[in-house]
Amino acid sequence: MDLSRIGEFGIIKRITKKPIDKNILIGIGDDTAIIKLKNKLLALTADTLVEGDHFSLDYFTPEQVGKKAIEINVSDIGSMGGIPKYALVSLVLPRNTDVKIVDAIYRGIWQTCKKYKLEVVGGNITHGKQLVIDVSMLGEVKKENLCLRSTAKPGDFILVTGPLGTSTAGLNLLLKNIGNYNKVRKAHLEPEASLYKVKPFLRYINAMIDVSDGLASEVQHICEQSKVGAVIFKDNIPILEETRKAAELLNANPIDYALYGGEDFELVFTVSEKNLSKVKGFLIGEIRRKKGVYLYSNGKERLIKKHGYDHFL
Amino acid sequence: MDLSRIGEFGIIKRITKKPIDKNILIGIGDDTAIIKLKNKLLALTADTLVEGDHFSLDYFTPEQVGKKAIEINVSDIGSMGGIPKYALVSLVLPRNTDVKIVDAIYRGIWQTCKKYKLEVVGGNITHGKQLVIDVSMLGEVKKENLCLRSTAKPGDFILVTGPLGTSTAGLNLLLKNIGNYNKVRKAHLEPEASLYKVKPFLRYINAMIDVSDGLASEVQHICEQSKVGAVIFKDNIPILEETRKAAELLNANPIDYALYGGEDFELVFTVSEKNLSKVKGFLIGEIRRKKGVYLYSNGKERLIKKHGYDHFL
Repeated sequence: MDLSRIGEFGIIKRITKKPIDKNILIGIGDDTAIIKLKNKLLALTADTLVEGDHFSLDYFTPEQVGKKAIEINVSDIGSMGGIPKYALVSLVLPRNTDVKIVDAIYRGIWQTCKKYKLEVVGGNITHGKQLVIDVSMLGEVKKENLCLRSTAKPGDFILVTGPLGTSTAGLNLLLKNIGNYNKVRKAHLEPEASLYKVKPFLRYINAMIDVSDGLASEVQHICEQSKVGAVIFKDNIPILEETRKAAELLNANPIDYALYGGEDFELVFTVSEKNLSKVKGFLIGEIRRKKGVYLYSNGKERLIKKHGYDHFL
Repeated sequence: MDLSRIGEFGIIKRITKKPIDKNILIGIGDDTAIIKLKNKLLALTADTLVEGDHFSLDYFTPEQVGKKAIEINVSDIGSMGGIPKYALVSLVLPRNTDVKIVDAIYRGIWQTCKKYKLEVVGGNITHGKQLVIDVSMLGEVKKENLCLRSTAKPGDFILVTGPLGTSTAGLNLLLKNIGNYNKVRKAHLEPEASLYKVKPFLRYINAMIDVSDGLASEVQHICEQSKVGAVIFKDNIPILEETRKAAELLNANPIDYALYGGEDFELVFTVSEKNLSKVKGFLIGEIRRKKGVYLYSNGKERLIKKHGYDHFL
């Protein structure tokens, strides 16, 4: 769930108005909404995949599309420190859709649901001009595990759970129909949520977000909502050797893939110096009072452009 | 939420497999899923509107589309005896969409949310070839108010909360660009959920469903899931005088609109003879052991065709 880009339409003020219901702890503006129900916290989110925009059946199998539709929502709930529980699947299908494709999409959905012990409890199927999968998901979050975008503190370290830019390298290989580089292509075709990587130490995390739109954009979200700034150490950004090789082949800069690419679904989180030893991840930067997100390299800092890769642009 | 029509794709077995999680009281197969959380019951549902299939901007204003997207989900939660609380709105927009249209859709969404004191807590916006609005909704149901499709009893009376066929008459007038008949056209353009009509006597209702696909189809759902049959008294089906006049003009049978039309969003419910005096509505039939749904008229019964109007056919 990310309505931040709705600003493109000039209606952000209406969309982000303050919730009236006091049980809405977090409304629009984080990875999921957080709703208090008695002594439980519920995480509620939805994310949409549109054929031709988010995937192409030229290189995705229908199973992979089904898997991805679930993983991206699991990632959103995981980035709040939550556990996914129940999913609704809304499918829009072109009239000529082969039943085997629908069957395969659901096979992917069920496989991924099984992995996370989450269940599809409903949804609907309708007609349309192109394949659309909108999954909404309900999860639970323990109070002590809740991780927001808005709670990073100056002095925090910034860590990431795994290598970045992999998915974007994979996408570019797929678009140009370049073989090999299997790990990189698979990262795009079968992304996996990273919630289990942070599960053992959730209570030590100050702020967290998942990397759906590129590191630059995600750190910017944390900084804006926490009213802080950040510096990212360019040389510390974890990038797979295979991603670097693919980027070279594609005449691209792998750092750009990491900063402005998307869909790695790793988690970026901040942690105080005191708790650094309690967590695991790649240390890539620091939160500080000075506003703006800067990239540090060779003794110099430069301001990072605001937006990463945006599906809507 | 209605995945019953997914049977068209031959994957109904996979979709409707028995839930593993014991807190899923109702999974796929009713108007919403029902999930037990501590001593609360949550209702979870999603419904999709696709331009060209469910509405046309030739005769719908964007506000009306936004309103309808919320009302149809409120209707599903209401048909379980629940109260809607939180909504997620996923929008797929063609690239040339005017910001004014998006703004107007959200105006409709917010107006309807305000009416039901429900709040939009998230969602997303993506690109696509046609306008799609998928709304998912979370509601609460008091245990004593829970109304399922599967709990009708032989001997129950069948009641409906209001006139049927109105929306279909309106749709046909709109498709043929015929003016006047404002009430009928408005019924299609601005349908309203009927939950408040049954709220005072929910605990006396045995089974309930909302009329999204026509009376024949809805009573069939109740009968199949309750393992009973029904007879509907043709002359008792409430149909507005204006609907009858519109049908005459359109050379159609208003009873067909009621039985096989859709989107009236009235509620059909069953109640025991003992509790009949406790409820309000139009008495249109009876539940009985003999399987099948029959229409009674002029001393004769005939079996009603299984499917009403189905968006997917």
